[in-house]
Amino acid sequence: MTNLQINGDRLWQSMMDSARIGATSGGGLSRLALTDLDREMRDLFVGWCEDAGCSVTIDLLGNISARRSGRDEVSAPIAFGSHLDTQPLGGRFDGVLGVLAGLEVMRTLQEAGYVTGMPLELINWTNEEGSRFAPAMLSSGGFAGVFDIEYVLSRRDRDGKTFGDELRRIGYAGSQPIGRPLSAYFELHIEQGPILESKGKLIGVVNGGQGAKWYEITVKGNSGHSGATPMRLRRDALVGASQMIAHVDEMVRQHEPEGVATVGLVEVKPNSRNVVPGEVFFTVDLRHPRADALARMDRELRRKLGKVAASHDLDLEISLIWDSEPARFNSCCISFVREAAKAGGYSSFDVISGAAHDAIYVSKVAPTAMIFVPCKGGVSHNEAESIEFDHAVAGANVLLHAILNCDRHLSGAGKLT
Amino acid sequence: MTNLQINGDRLWQSMMDSARIGATSGGGLSRLALTDLDREMRDLFVGWCEDAGCSVTIDLLGNISARRSGRDEVSAPIAFGSHLDTQPLGGRFDGVLGVLAGLEVMRTLQEAGYVTGMPLELINWTNEEGSRFAPAMLSSGGFAGVFDIEYVLSRRDRDGKTFGDELRRIGYAGSQPIGRPLSAYFELHIEQGPILESKGKLIGVVNGGQGAKWYEITVKGNSGHSGATPMRLRRDALVGASQMIAHVDEMVRQHEPEGVATVGLVEVKPNSRNVVPGEVFFTVDLRHPRADALARMDRELRRKLGKVAASHDLDLEISLIWDSEPARFNSCCISFVREAAKAGGYSSFDVISGAAHDAIYVSKVAPTAMIFVPCKGGVSHNEAESIEFDHAVAGANVLLHAILNCDRHLSGAGKLT
Repeated sequence: MTNLQINGDRLWQSMMDSARIGATSGGGLSRLALTDLDREMRDLFVGWCEDAGCSVTIDLLGNISARRSGRDEVSAPIAFGSHLDTQPLGGRFDGVLGVLAGLEVMRTLQEAGYVTGMPLELINWTNEEGSRFAPAMLSSGGFAGVFDIEYVLSRRDRDGKTFGDELRRIGYAGSQPIGRPLSAYFELHIEQGPILESKGKLIGVVNGGQGAKWYEITVKGNSGHSGATPMRLRRDALVGASQMIAHVDEMVRQHEPEGVATVGLVEVKPNSRNVVPGEVFFTVDLRHPRADALARMDRELRRKLGKVAASHDLDLEISLIWDSEPARFNSCCISFVREAAKAGGYSSFDVISGAAHDAIYVSKVAPTAMIFVPCKGGVSHNEAESIEFDHAVAGANVLLHAILNCDRHLSGAGKLT
Repeated sequence: MTNLQINGDRLWQSMMDSARIGATSGGGLSRLALTDLDREMRDLFVGWCEDAGCSVTIDLLGNISARRSGRDEVSAPIAFGSHLDTQPLGGRFDGVLGVLAGLEVMRTLQEAGYVTGMPLELINWTNEEGSRFAPAMLSSGGFAGVFDIEYVLSRRDRDGKTFGDELRRIGYAGSQPIGRPLSAYFELHIEQGPILESKGKLIGVVNGGQGAKWYEITVKGNSGHSGATPMRLRRDALVGASQMIAHVDEMVRQHEPEGVATVGLVEVKPNSRNVVPGEVFFTVDLRHPRADALARMDRELRRKLGKVAASHDLDLEISLIWDSEPARFNSCCISFVREAAKAGGYSSFDVISGAAHDAIYVSKVAPTAMIFVPCKGGVSHNEAESIEFDHAVAGANVLLHAILNCDRHLSGAGKLT
């Protein structure tokens, strides 16, 4: 069975079916977590899983598990998956590829009548993106014990709606408890960066992920009339925030190429043309593969922001809302991926993930590895995100055979070290 | 009749009645132009005017005129007024004082049975603030021929709704043509700046207004994943926009104390924590009492923004959406105000308006002057905006007697030079 192959056309068709639910005029996807569109996609996905012979359960955080029995029904399953939610103006493949390639694995095994030793479980994690409910990866984080269940359920979107209420509203508040054991976890994902493309490699063997720190910053000054308030009497929150954002960019230049820093979201109050802004809220996202360097970036950020606030007599609140350590994946799982790529005749390259993924959290409680395939120009979180058909097929085949490699190893009473 | 006095309690009560329509939790007003709240306030105002014996007409731009007959019904009226719309988080007195003090003038004359020589006309101008439909003072600008009627009616808010549609929706699209002659125009307004307070003066005799230029700026780069896009490959529109905003502030420091510059409104796309911003829209408001200095600020703005855009490889669009020359008011009308203040025993001080007002546009087609009263700490366009009862009374009495001074002058066949 080592030459078992997934059905590329079927995989692609499923992704194109997904791409209609929340399609944007720019060719991307806008399918925020726990919206009506998310429900529509979940309903379609659950039907597909049942047609593929899986039994579906939903847990307290809305994570969907589709289980396929193995000969051994006592051991914990080998799991794989990703997420079906997207950014506000995201692409069609971020997350979706991993879930639907997992579905394609289930369909391929069903079609071939292949029974694994271990049970298999395909998982769609809720709210990976973090753009509706921050921080990101809330539900894989809940699964891994990084976040309390109550914390996750009480997260609010910018309109004040809670995760828990919205989960109930779309009918995906399940009853399965959180945090059952997994024998291993694999996740296929688009790279969301330019490294594979620039190296001319097809498969990224992901050895781990960057650490990340997310901040919410509030700057407060005084609002006033834009024409009648002399410059020397102003406490303009936006002038301060703008200098802070410029400083964040300047700071991270000292940590290139590994370090990255992004201010992605800004809200100005009252946001009127002829009013001096009295308050600005913005977010900062810092990442680095090494914990010590990330801690240094944190210190520099706080120092620079404090300095700007003081120089403009502005009030400053810095809230660290997410702190994720750098992750190292399981060496056996990494090997299963590398061997699957080699056996499939695909070129591969060892990488560290720049983006955060559900796998980063799952790796805290289960042996884990990830598989990357290139995306065009490294562009992601963007409507223009695109991947090659052949790359999707290669990634799904590597996922299939990494799972089968792992299954043979564990069924042969091997351990993952 | 030189000792005729307005009724301060009645004036204050009317302002407190207005303060309930769109009241904010912070003690201010949120009554954007052509909203349901604007309609509610207009309905109340029209009823009051009719009760005060005025005949009300509405023009094509929704400006409300309340006319009181004089002995001479052929001559053009002496007009006065201001606006009832507010900022998104504005105060209770900006604009409202001028309209309701005008109403109090009508009520006082009615009560006293005083018949003027010239007809009088109290005007509420539509959309003075410019925060819903930009630019500001659209309808006094339409009245003065600065804007075409079609231009005004086609302005869109950020949701895409037009001025014309919203005017019809609230039932204030009138039939009176635009641009009939006025013999003179007076406007009482809060200062919206700190000068009167700092000088310890009660009445600002406004000699004219600053010039203003309003811009809409769009900065375009590329969006991408915040974790996986290396810094050197980014075209971050927000980093560029932030440096631009910091430069605007730096630039205007060369033009202190007269020059002011404000970035009041910012919109980031897609505005998500973990996405490098691909596009930023922001506004710039430049003001200076001298046209040559304002032109220099314009050149410096364009040069600095262009430089930042080039250094980050960003696309930049700069659109000048409003260009208002500095104004000089009519010397006779200014004298009527100064004499009214003196006769009332109020201290006064000659000032140039920092803020733009309907009077600035009306001054292009009619002899005009303005009266300022202090606002606490110079704070305006802010929920915390407040004025003293005594100052409101003083301002309304000066308005009344400036009008009566003007009426005596014109009725005696005097000219305004």
